Amino acid sequence: MMYPKTFEKLIECFQLLPGVGAKTAERYAFTMLEAPQEQVKLFAKTLLECKENIRHCQTCGNISDTEECPICRDAQRNHQMICVVQSPKDILAMEKTQEYKGVYHVLNGLISTSKGIMPEDINIESLIQRITPETEEVIIATNATVEGETTALYLDKLLSGKGVLVTRIAHGLPMGGHLDYADELTLIKAFEGRKKIQ
Amino acid sequence: MMYPKTFEKLIECFQLLPGVGAKTAERYAFTMLEAPQEQVKLFAKTLLECKENIRHCQTCGNISDTEECPICRDAQRNHQMICVVQSPKDILAMEKTQEYKGVYHVLNGLISTSKGIMPEDINIESLIQRITPETEEVIIATNATVEGETTALYLDKLLSGKGVLVTRIAHGLPMGGHLDYADELTLIKAFEGRKKIQ
Repeated sequence: MMYPKTFEKLIECFQLLPGVGAKTAERYAFTMLEAPQEQVKLFAKTLLECKENIRHCQTCGNISDTEECPICRDAQRNHQMICVVQSPKDILAMEKTQEYKGVYHVLNGLISTSKGIMPEDINIESLIQRITPETEEVIIATNATVEGETTALYLDKLLSGKGVLVTRIAHGLPMGGHLDYADELTLIKAFEGRKKIQ
Repeated sequence: MMYPKTFEKLIECFQLLPGVGAKTAERYAFTMLEAPQEQVKLFAKTLLECKENIRHCQTCGNISDTEECPICRDAQRNHQMICVVQSPKDILAMEKTQEYKGVYHVLNGLISTSKGIMPEDINIESLIQRITPETEEVIIATNATVEGETTALYLDKLLSGKGVLVTRIAHGLPMGGHLDYADELTLIKAFEGRKKIQ
Protein backbone atom coordinates (compact mmCIF):
# COMPACT_ATOMS: atom_id res chain seq x y z
CA MET A 1 0.00 0.00 0.00
CA MET A 2 0.98 3.59 -0.59
CA TYR A 3 -0.70 6.68 0.81
CA PRO A 4 -3.13 8.51 -1.52
CA LYS A 5 -1.22 10.60 -4.10
CA THR A 6 -2.24 14.03 -2.78
CA PHE A 7 -1.14 12.97 0.67
CA GLU A 8 2.23 11.75 -0.62
CA LYS A 9 2.61 15.13 -2.34
CA LEU A 10 1.89 16.97 0.92
CA ILE A 11 4.57 14.90 2.67
CA GLU A 12 7.03 15.88 -0.09
CA CYS A 13 6.09 19.55 0.33
CA PHE A 14 6.84 19.45 4.06
CA GLN A 15 10.24 17.92 3.29
CA LEU A 16 11.21 21.23 1.65
CA LEU A 17 11.47 22.70 5.16
CA PRO A 18 14.96 22.75 6.70
CA GLY A 19 15.82 19.70 8.80
CA VAL A 20 12.55 17.91 8.03
CA GLY A 21 12.94 14.29 6.91
CA ALA A 22 10.39 11.74 5.72
CA LYS A 23 9.16 10.76 9.21
CA THR A 24 8.66 14.32 10.47
CA ALA A 25 7.01 15.38 7.20
CA GLU A 26 4.60 12.46 7.57
CA ARG A 27 3.76 13.59 11.10
CA TYR A 28 3.16 17.16 9.93
CA ALA A 29 0.94 15.95 7.08
CA PHE A 30 -1.19 13.86 9.46
CA THR A 31 -1.53 16.88 11.78
CA MET A 32 -2.86 18.94 8.89
CA LEU A 33 -5.28 16.15 8.00
CA GLU A 34 -6.72 16.19 11.51
CA ALA A 35 -6.72 19.99 11.88
CA PRO A 36 -9.96 21.99 11.44
CA GLN A 37 -10.75 22.96 7.84
CA GLU A 38 -10.58 26.68 8.73
CA GLN A 39 -7.06 26.39 10.10
CA VAL A 40 -5.73 24.64 7.02
CA LYS A 41 -7.39 27.18 4.73
CA LEU A 42 -5.82 30.02 6.71
CA PHE A 43 -2.43 28.31 6.49
CA ALA A 44 -2.64 27.99 2.69
CA LYS A 45 -3.89 31.56 2.32
CA THR A 46 -1.13 32.98 4.53
CA LEU A 47 1.53 31.09 2.59
CA LEU A 48 0.37 32.64 -0.67
CA GLU A 49 -0.07 36.10 0.85
CA CYS A 50 3.42 36.06 2.32
CA LYS A 51 4.93 35.04 -0.98
CA GLU A 52 3.03 37.80 -2.73
CA ASN A 53 3.36 40.71 -0.32
CA ILE A 54 6.61 40.28 1.58
CA ARG A 55 9.67 41.63 -0.22
CA HIS A 56 13.09 42.91 0.72
CA CYS A 57 13.29 46.60 1.68
CA GLN A 58 14.91 48.36 -1.28
CA THR A 59 17.23 50.30 1.00
CA CYS A 60 18.43 47.86 3.63
CA GLY A 61 17.34 44.37 2.51
CA ASN A 62 15.18 43.71 5.60
CA ILE A 63 11.85 41.93 4.97
CA SER A 64 8.90 44.26 4.62
CA ASP A 65 5.39 44.50 3.22
CA THR A 66 6.16 47.99 1.91
CA GLU A 67 8.83 49.31 -0.50
CA GLU A 68 10.89 50.54 2.44
CA CYS A 69 10.85 48.86 5.85
CA PRO A 70 9.53 50.74 8.94
CA ILE A 71 13.07 51.28 10.25
CA CYS A 72 14.30 52.91 7.03
CA ARG A 73 11.18 55.11 6.98
CA ASP A 74 11.66 56.24 10.58
CA ALA A 75 12.96 59.83 10.54
CA GLN A 76 13.71 59.63 14.30
CA ARG A 77 16.56 57.19 13.71
CA ASN A 78 20.15 58.10 12.87
CA HIS A 79 20.52 57.25 9.18
CA GLN A 80 24.26 57.98 9.28
CA MET A 81 24.92 54.95 11.47
CA ILE A 82 24.56 51.60 9.69
CA CYS A 83 24.63 48.24 11.46
CA VAL A 84 25.40 45.36 9.08
CA VAL A 85 23.75 42.02 9.94
CA GLN A 86 23.33 38.66 8.26
CA SER A 87 19.55 38.28 8.32
CA PRO A 88 16.29 40.00 9.35
CA LYS A 89 16.23 37.77 12.45
CA ASP A 90 19.30 39.61 13.73
CA ILE A 91 17.49 42.95 13.45
CA LEU A 92 14.74 41.57 15.68
CA ALA A 93 17.34 40.49 18.25
CA MET A 94 19.07 43.89 18.19
CA GLU A 95 15.81 45.83 18.40
CA LYS A 96 14.80 43.93 21.52
CA THR A 97 17.67 45.62 23.37
CA GLN A 98 16.12 49.05 22.59
CA GLU A 99 19.63 50.52 22.69
CA TYR A 100 20.57 51.03 19.06
CA LYS A 101 19.04 54.03 17.30
CA GLY A 102 20.76 53.82 13.90
CA VAL A 103 19.61 51.90 10.81
CA TYR A 104 20.50 48.45 9.48
CA HIS A 105 21.79 46.75 6.40
CA VAL A 106 20.89 43.10 5.87
CA LEU A 107 23.36 41.04 3.82
CA ASN A 108 20.94 38.10 3.48
CA GLY A 109 23.87 35.71 3.63
CA LEU A 110 27.56 35.53 4.50
CA ILE A 111 30.61 34.97 2.33
CA SER A 112 31.48 31.27 2.45
CA THR A 113 34.18 29.72 0.32
CA SER A 114 33.12 26.21 1.36
CA LYS A 115 29.51 26.78 0.26
CA GLY A 116 30.59 28.74 -2.81
CA ILE A 117 28.92 31.98 -1.67
CA MET A 118 30.92 34.89 -3.10
CA PRO A 119 30.72 38.61 -2.18
CA GLU A 120 28.60 39.29 -5.28
CA ASP A 121 25.99 36.73 -4.11
CA ILE A 122 25.06 38.73 -1.01
CA ASN A 123 23.67 42.21 -0.49
CA ILE A 124 27.00 44.12 -0.45
CA GLU A 125 26.68 46.27 -3.58
CA SER A 126 23.74 48.23 -2.16
CA LEU A 127 25.66 48.80 1.10
CA ILE A 128 28.47 50.50 -0.80
CA GLN A 129 25.95 52.70 -2.57
CA ARG A 130 24.39 53.78 0.74
CA ILE A 131 27.65 55.12 2.11
CA THR A 132 28.06 58.87 1.64
CA PRO A 133 30.63 61.32 3.08
CA GLU A 134 28.04 62.00 5.82
CA THR A 135 28.00 58.37 7.03
CA GLU A 136 29.39 58.34 10.57
CA GLU A 137 29.91 54.66 11.25
CA VAL A 138 29.40 51.20 9.84
CA ILE A 139 29.07 48.61 12.63
CA ILE A 140 29.64 45.08 11.43
CA ALA A 141 27.46 42.77 13.53
CA THR A 142 27.76 39.47 11.66
CA ASN A 143 27.87 36.27 13.72
CA ALA A 144 31.06 35.24 15.52
CA THR A 145 31.56 32.28 13.15
CA VAL A 146 34.22 31.65 10.50
CA GLU A 147 31.87 32.93 7.82
CA GLY A 148 30.82 35.94 9.89
CA GLU A 149 34.47 36.87 10.52
CA THR A 150 35.42 36.40 6.84
CA THR A 151 32.59 38.68 5.78
CA ALA A 152 33.54 41.26 8.42
CA LEU A 153 37.18 41.34 7.25
CA TYR A 154 36.10 41.58 3.61
CA LEU A 155 33.76 44.51 4.35
CA ASP A 156 36.40 46.30 6.43
CA LYS A 157 38.88 46.10 3.56
CA LEU A 158 36.27 47.17 1.03
CA LEU A 159 35.19 50.20 3.07
CA SER A 160 38.66 51.29 4.23
CA GLY A 161 39.11 53.68 1.28
CA LYS A 162 35.74 55.37 1.84
CA GLY A 163 36.82 57.47 4.81
CA VAL A 164 34.13 55.96 7.03
CA LEU A 165 34.65 54.55 10.51
CA VAL A 166 34.18 50.76 10.38
CA THR A 167 33.74 48.93 13.70
CA ARG A 168 33.07 45.33 14.74
CA ILE A 169 30.88 44.34 17.72
CA ALA A 170 32.86 43.05 20.71
CA HIS A 171 33.65 39.38 21.31
CA GLY A 172 34.18 38.01 24.78
CA LEU A 173 32.62 36.16 27.68
CA PRO A 174 28.80 36.35 27.45
CA MET A 175 27.04 37.92 30.45
CA GLY A 176 26.37 35.22 33.06
CA GLY A 177 29.10 33.09 31.47
CA HIS A 178 31.62 31.07 33.46
CA LEU A 179 35.35 31.15 32.61
CA ASP A 180 35.74 27.41 33.02
CA TYR A 181 32.98 26.68 30.50
CA ALA A 182 34.15 29.18 27.85
CA ASP A 183 36.06 27.85 24.82
CA GLU A 184 39.64 28.95 24.17
CA LEU A 185 38.89 31.26 21.26
CA THR A 186 36.30 33.15 23.30
CA LEU A 187 38.81 33.58 26.14
CA ILE A 188 41.53 34.79 23.76
CA LYS A 189 39.07 37.34 22.31
CA ALA A 190 37.98 38.38 25.80
CA PHE A 191 41.61 39.02 26.80
CA GLU A 192 42.40 40.89 23.60
CA GLY A 193 39.38 43.10 24.06
CA ARG A 194 40.04 43.99 27.74
CA LYS A 195 39.34 47.57 28.80
CA LYS A 196 40.32 49.83 31.68
CA ILE A 197 37.69 49.70 34.42
CA GLN A 198 35.92 53.03 34.56
CA MET B 1 10.49 46.29 15.29
CA MET B 2 8.14 43.46 14.55
CA TYR B 3 8.00 41.35 11.42
CA PRO B 4 5.33 42.31 8.86
CA LYS B 5 1.89 41.08 9.97
CA THR B 6 1.44 38.45 7.27
CA PHE B 7 4.83 37.03 8.11
CA GLU B 8 3.99 36.88 11.83
CA LYS B 9 0.81 35.03 10.86
CA LEU B 10 2.78 32.50 8.82
CA ILE B 11 5.06 31.87 11.81
CA GLU B 12 1.95 31.26 13.93
CA CYS B 13 0.62 28.82 11.34
CA PHE B 14 3.81 26.78 11.39
CA GLN B 15 3.56 26.60 15.19
CA LEU B 16 0.43 24.47 14.75
CA LEU B 17 2.71 21.60 13.68
CA PRO B 18 3.68 19.13 16.44
CA GLY B 19 6.92 19.95 18.23
CA VAL B 20 7.44 23.23 16.38
CA GLY B 21 8.22 26.21 18.61
CA ALA B 22 8.69 29.90 17.82
CA LYS B 23 12.30 29.58 16.61
CA THR B 24 11.70 26.62 14.29
CA ALA B 25 8.51 28.19 12.93
CA GLU B 26 10.49 31.35 12.16
CA ARG B 27 13.08 29.28 10.28
CA TYR B 28 10.36 27.50 8.30
CA ALA B 29 8.71 30.82 7.42
CA PHE B 30 12.01 32.26 6.15
CA THR B 31 12.56 29.14 4.04
CA MET B 32 9.16 29.63 2.43
CA LEU B 33 9.99 33.29 1.77
CA GLU B 34 13.16 32.32 -0.09
CA ALA B 35 11.61 29.34 -1.92
CA PRO B 36 10.57 29.69 -5.60
CA GLN B 37 7.06 31.07 -6.13
CA GLU B 38 5.98 27.86 -7.89
CA GLN B 39 6.96 25.68 -4.94
CA VAL B 40 5.03 27.76 -2.42
CA LYS B 41 1.96 27.81 -4.68
CA LEU B 42 2.12 24.03 -5.00
CA PHE B 43 2.44 23.71 -1.22
CA ALA B 44 -0.66 25.84 -0.59
CA LYS B 45 -2.61 24.01 -3.29
CA THR B 46 -1.67 20.58 -1.96
CA LEU B 47 -2.67 21.56 1.58
CA LEU B 48 -6.16 22.53 0.38
CA GLU B 49 -6.49 19.49 -1.89
CA CYS B 50 -5.54 17.12 0.90
CA LYS B 51 -8.04 18.68 3.26
CA GLU B 52 -10.72 18.42 0.61
CA ASN B 53 -10.09 14.98 -0.89
CA ILE B 54 -8.56 12.81 1.78
CA ARG B 55 -11.07 11.14 4.07
CA HIS B 56 -11.25 8.08 6.28
CA CYS B 57 -12.21 4.83 4.54
CA GLN B 58 -15.80 4.13 5.59
CA THR B 59 -15.02 0.49 6.29
CA CYS B 60 -11.66 0.45 8.06
CA GLY B 61 -10.82 4.07 8.94
CA ASN B 62 -7.61 4.18 6.88
CA ILE B 63 -6.95 7.41 4.96
CA SER B 64 -8.09 7.32 1.36
CA ASP B 65 -9.09 9.53 -1.55
CA THR B 66 -12.00 7.21 -2.35
CA GLU B 67 -14.99 6.04 -0.24
CA GLU B 68 -13.24 2.75 0.45
CA CYS B 69 -9.47 2.40 0.65
CA PRO B 70 -7.57 0.24 -1.89
CA ILE B 71 -7.06 -2.52 0.70
CA CYS B 72 -10.77 -2.82 1.53
CA ARG B 73 -11.58 -2.87 -2.20
CA ASP B 74 -9.03 -5.62 -2.92
CA ALA B 75 -10.96 -8.89 -3.51
CA GLN B 76 -7.67 -10.87 -3.39
CA ARG B 77 -7.28 -10.21 0.33
CA ASN B 78 -8.80 -12.23 3.13
CA HIS B 79 -11.63 -10.08 4.48
CA GLN B 80 -12.27 -12.50 7.35
CA MET B 81 -8.97 -11.62 9.01
CA ILE B 82 -8.86 -8.14 10.57
CA CYS B 83 -5.68 -6.56 11.92
CA VAL B 84 -6.43 -3.70 14.34
CA VAL B 85 -3.89 -0.86 14.37
CA GLN B 86 -3.67 2.60 15.88
CA SER B 87 -3.03 4.72 12.78
CA PRO B 88 -2.66 4.58 8.97
CA LYS B 89 1.14 4.79 9.46
CA ASP B 90 1.02 1.34 11.03
CA ILE B 91 -0.65 -0.10 7.93
CA LEU B 92 2.23 1.22 5.83
CA ALA B 93 4.72 -0.46 8.16
CA MET B 94 2.83 -3.79 8.06
CA GLU B 95 2.40 -3.70 4.27
CA LYS B 96 6.15 -3.27 3.80
CA THR B 97 6.62 -6.79 5.18
CA GLN B 98 4.42 -8.18 2.34
CA GLU B 99 3.45 -11.02 4.68
CA TYR B 100 -0.04 -10.15 5.84
CA LYS B 101 -2.88 -10.78 3.37
CA GLY B 102 -5.89 -9.89 5.53
CA VAL B 103 -7.52 -6.47 5.95
CA TYR B 104 -7.09 -3.76 8.58
CA HIS B 105 -9.06 -1.70 11.02
CA VAL B 106 -7.65 1.69 12.05
CA LEU B 107 -8.65 2.94 15.50
CA ASN B 108 -7.29 6.45 14.87
CA GLY B 109 -6.27 6.69 18.50
CA LEU B 110 -5.82 4.61 21.64
CA ILE B 111 -7.73 4.51 24.91
CA SER B 112 -5.92 6.75 27.39
CA THR B 113 -7.29 7.55 30.80
CA SER B 114 -4.56 10.16 31.38
CA LYS B 115 -5.43 12.04 28.17
CA GLY B 116 -9.15 11.48 28.69
CA ILE B 117 -9.58 9.41 25.51
CA MET B 118 -12.43 6.99 26.10
CA PRO B 119 -13.44 3.91 24.03
CA GLU B 120 -16.22 5.91 22.38
CA ASP B 121 -13.72 8.52 21.14
CA ILE B 122 -11.91 6.07 18.88
CA ASN B 123 -13.01 3.95 15.93
CA ILE B 124 -14.23 0.89 17.90
CA GLU B 125 -17.96 0.96 17.12
CA SER B 126 -17.40 0.30 13.40
CA LEU B 127 -15.04 -2.59 14.27
CA ILE B 128 -17.82 -4.33 16.21
CA GLN B 129 -20.15 -3.88 13.27
CA ARG B 130 -17.64 -5.44 10.86
CA ILE B 131 -17.45 -8.67 12.79
CA THR B 132 -19.72 -11.43 11.46
CA PRO B 133 -19.94 -15.14 12.29
CA GLU B 134 -17.64 -15.67 9.26
CA THR B 135 -14.81 -13.55 10.75
CA GLU B 136 -11.87 -15.89 11.40
CA GLU B 137 -9.52 -13.76 13.47
CA VAL B 138 -9.01 -10.30 14.91
CA ILE B 139 -5.29 -9.55 15.39
CA ILE B 140 -4.68 -6.68 17.77
CA ALA B 141 -1.51 -4.90 16.64
CA THR B 142 -1.56 -1.75 18.76
CA ASN B 143 1.78 -0.42 20.04
CA ALA B 144 3.51 -2.07 22.98
CA THR B 145 2.86 0.93 25.21
CA VAL B 146 0.60 1.34 28.25
CA GLU B 147 -2.12 2.83 26.04
CA GLY B 148 -1.68 0.16 23.38
CA GLU B 149 -1.96 -2.60 25.98
CA THR B 150 -5.00 -1.02 27.63
CA THR B 151 -6.76 -0.80 24.29
CA ALA B 152 -5.82 -4.40 23.45
CA LEU B 153 -7.25 -5.69 26.74
CA TYR B 154 -10.41 -3.64 26.29
CA LEU B 155 -10.96 -4.97 22.77
CA ASP B 156 -10.29 -8.54 23.85
CA LYS B 157 -12.93 -8.27 26.56
CA LEU B 158 -15.39 -6.59 24.20
CA LEU B 159 -14.98 -9.23 21.50
CA SER B 160 -14.87 -12.28 23.78
CA GLY B 161 -18.63 -12.86 23.52
CA LYS B 162 -18.62 -12.69 19.72
CA GLY B 163 -17.18 -16.16 19.18
CA VAL B 164 -14.27 -14.81 17.19
CA LEU B 165 -10.59 -15.64 17.74
CA VAL B 166 -8.82 -12.58 19.16
CA THR B 167 -5.00 -12.58 19.10
CA ARG B 168 -2.28 -10.10 20.05
CA ILE B 169 1.01 -9.69 18.14
CA ALA B 170 4.03 -11.13 19.99
CA HIS B 171 6.25 -9.10 22.31
CA GLY B 172 9.88 -10.01 22.86
CA LEU B 173 13.46 -9.27 21.92
CA PRO B 174 13.57 -7.41 18.57
CA MET B 175 15.59 -9.09 15.81
CA GLY B 176 19.24 -8.04 16.10
CA GLY B 177 18.59 -7.07 19.74
CA HIS B 178 21.03 -7.77 22.57
CA LEU B 179 19.86 -9.25 25.88
CA ASP B 180 21.99 -6.87 27.95
CA TYR B 181 20.43 -3.82 26.30
CA ALA B 182 16.81 -5.01 26.57
CA ASP B 183 14.62 -3.53 29.29
CA GLU B 184 13.14 -5.77 32.00
CA LEU B 185 9.59 -5.72 30.71
CA THR B 186 10.70 -6.81 27.24
CA LEU B 187 12.69 -9.67 28.76
CA ILE B 188 9.75 -10.78 30.90
CA LYS B 189 7.52 -10.75 27.81
CA ALA B 190 10.17 -12.63 25.81
CA PHE B 191 10.33 -15.34 28.49
CA GLU B 192 6.58 -15.60 28.80
CA GLY B 193 6.24 -15.95 25.02
CA ARG B 194 8.91 -18.65 24.61
CA LYS B 195 8.20 -21.43 22.12
CA LYS B 196 9.51 -24.93 21.42
CA ILE B 197 12.25 -24.84 18.78
CA GLN B 198 10.97 -26.50 15.65
